Amino acid sequence: MRVDDLDTPVPIIDLDRVEHNMAKMQAYCDRHGLALRPHIKIHKIPRFALRQIELGAVGITCQKITEARVMAEAGCADILLTYPVVGAAKVEPLAELARMTRLTVSLDNAVSLDTVAAAARAAGVEIGILAEFDSGDGRCGVQTPDEALELARRAAEAANSGLTFRGLMTYPRGPRTVPFVAEARGLLERAGIPVQTVSVGGTPGCWETHTLPGVTELRVGTYVYHDRATVGAGVATLDECAVHVLATVVSRPTPDRAILDSGSKTLSSDRVAPSVGDGFGLILDYPDAVITRLNEEHAVVDLSRCAARPEIGERVRVLPNHVCVVSNLHDRMAVAAGGELVGHWPVAARGCTR
Amino acid sequence: MRVDDLDTPVPIIDLDRVEHNMAKMQAYCDRHGLALRPHIKIHKIPRFALRQIELGAVGITCQKITEARVMAEAGCADILLTYPVVGAAKVEPLAELARMTRLTVSLDNAVSLDTVAAAARAAGVEIGILAEFDSGDGRCGVQTPDEALELARRAAEAANSGLTFRGLMTYPRGPRTVPFVAEARGLLERAGIPVQTVSVGGTPGCWETHTLPGVTELRVGTYVYHDRATVGAGVATLDECAVHVLATVVSRPTPDRAILDSGSKTLSSDRVAPSVGDGFGLILDYPDAVITRLNEEHAVVDLSRCAARPEIGERVRVLPNHVCVVSNLHDRMAVAAGGELVGHWPVAARGCTR
Repeated sequence: MRVDDLDTPVPIIDLDRVEHNMAKMQAYCDRHGLALRPHIKIHKIPRFALRQIELGAVGITCQKITEARVMAEAGCADILLTYPVVGAAKVEPLAELARMTRLTVSLDNAVSLDTVAAAARAAGVEIGILAEFDSGDGRCGVQTPDEALELARRAAEAANSGLTFRGLMTYPRGPRTVPFVAEARGLLERAGIPVQTVSVGGTPGCWETHTLPGVTELRVGTYVYHDRATVGAGVATLDECAVHVLATVVSRPTPDRAILDSGSKTLSSDRVAPSVGDGFGLILDYPDAVITRLNEEHAVVDLSRCAARPEIGERVRVLPNHVCVVSNLHDRMAVAAGGELVGHWPVAARGCTR
Repeated sequence: MRVDDLDTPVPIIDLDRVEHNMAKMQAYCDRHGLALRPHIKIHKIPRFALRQIELGAVGITCQKITEARVMAEAGCADILLTYPVVGAAKVEPLAELARMTRLTVSLDNAVSLDTVAAAARAAGVEIGILAEFDSGDGRCGVQTPDEALELARRAAEAANSGLTFRGLMTYPRGPRTVPFVAEARGLLERAGIPVQTVSVGGTPGCWETHTLPGVTELRVGTYVYHDRATVGAGVATLDECAVHVLATVVSRPTPDRAILDSGSKTLSSDRVAPSVGDGFGLILDYPDAVITRLNEEHAVVDLSRCAARPEIGERVRVLPNHVCVVSNLHDRMAVAAGGELVGHWPVAARGCTR
């Protein structure tokens, strides 16, 4: 069956482009001696994670325990959890995970460190620790190298014997990355604490990772599919985008307006920077059209700048603004090779927020 | 178990408030002789739909065929599908649905009407038609009463014998509603076509539905849960909001910043109007805090206007901006009565986009 004939709306993955994107990133990391640790939140599909490892990734990155659990059950043997796990309710799930896979957790505070230590004790296995630092993004992360040293010392206390401090991580890789790493590494090494890993993340800017002295590991996810945002950031071409949403024009109320059946339940409400483009996705077949508004099942399209205009019943391909959130909306995604349907693959780690 | 002890992030439904909200809306409709046809997209939970019918609703409203299918299988015997169904791939699913329930479909164009007629023929049963008109919202809908008449006439053609024209619908209820209905009803009745139903929708403005001459039916959904947007629109109080997200403070990188574990995968990226409030949800326990940014698993909170500030590990309750999209993100939601956990109910019609 041709994927163009599928019932809509439907997100479609192009397998050839996925393979191209995976190979290109692995080659980049190999060329520059960087460890590649792909973030699987983009696809949430175990067989893609296993393929990334087969191509040379050192392991994978997950954001939540439940997501990591799906991947560990599928056979991923080395997982970095880039989230500050906090609280008693997390101890047993984290311990179960640690029994299944080599586990490292990044964190920026002592409460989280104590939670992870409790899980290591409960599991009876070692859990690695990376100190997360804020390199300019303003989200999580310690603010000073001294705080990183304090976390490393706390991890080394006798009561925390199940923990091993493994290094530093940041998201993505702000302007403070290089000076912070240099200063923190000095502090830690003078205290006798080795820094094995310095991990940075994010697909935008990924091709410049080798220019950052001290960085050993790259965490990227979106590169597998790419989307309007990563094309806008200049790290991919439209031809490298591996996921589009096939949608149908269901109404043409006025000459300048079309309604597509791909609303926020299909595309999400995520925007791109104004410099990248207008609206809630790029209609590849009508690039002058603008998706001005989304409701849950409706995309309202302004056709006023379009010479040619779609008819009711016509199918169009929409490039999502942010493809990670699209993966999280769909239980299954259609998979295609050469335009032929390969199957409907479960997005096995969809909805794993805990 | 107290729901306050659940693992986070977790959306929690307060059953007592749901019951209050359902009863209040039914009483309003009964008082004014309006048929209530609740939109189930808000909750997507069959037993809530059945309870709405038990309380007096004439049937339910669904947005997509797959969503309606879940409700029909659960026993909902009268369904209005408020979506212009278009294309060959929809005929058989729509026919199957029509065999299971009394079905009405709203539409605004002849292509959709032909699709519905093909389904009626395939099913061998009658499907009702409402002509959707644009009362000022600028989404779907015919622009003139003449177009509504044309659709009604097309539904009456011999080739379309499985269709029955039942009236008019609009979403929500813009300023053109009353004059449009008056003019269209005149046109239709002079042509010998009775108008049984005039259906309007939307929770904002719902309590003024009885002031619109000619309107017979109210479609509302959000009233069951309410959210920050409907409170902002003045149709509910904070005490009537029946869903909140329990989240944990996982990081306090700076004195003015907290990170919660409720990101866009939990709350969605939907905003409210600036007049309603800032940010991506209201932290009920710290109303002066502002959720300035969401990533998929992180909520970045600005505490600079807060006198008291939450500690790492503390749990807070977040009122979502737009609760419909929250329902669509979660496979299950925790259900509570008096703060005690009743169960984790499947959101059975989650992810039904087709």
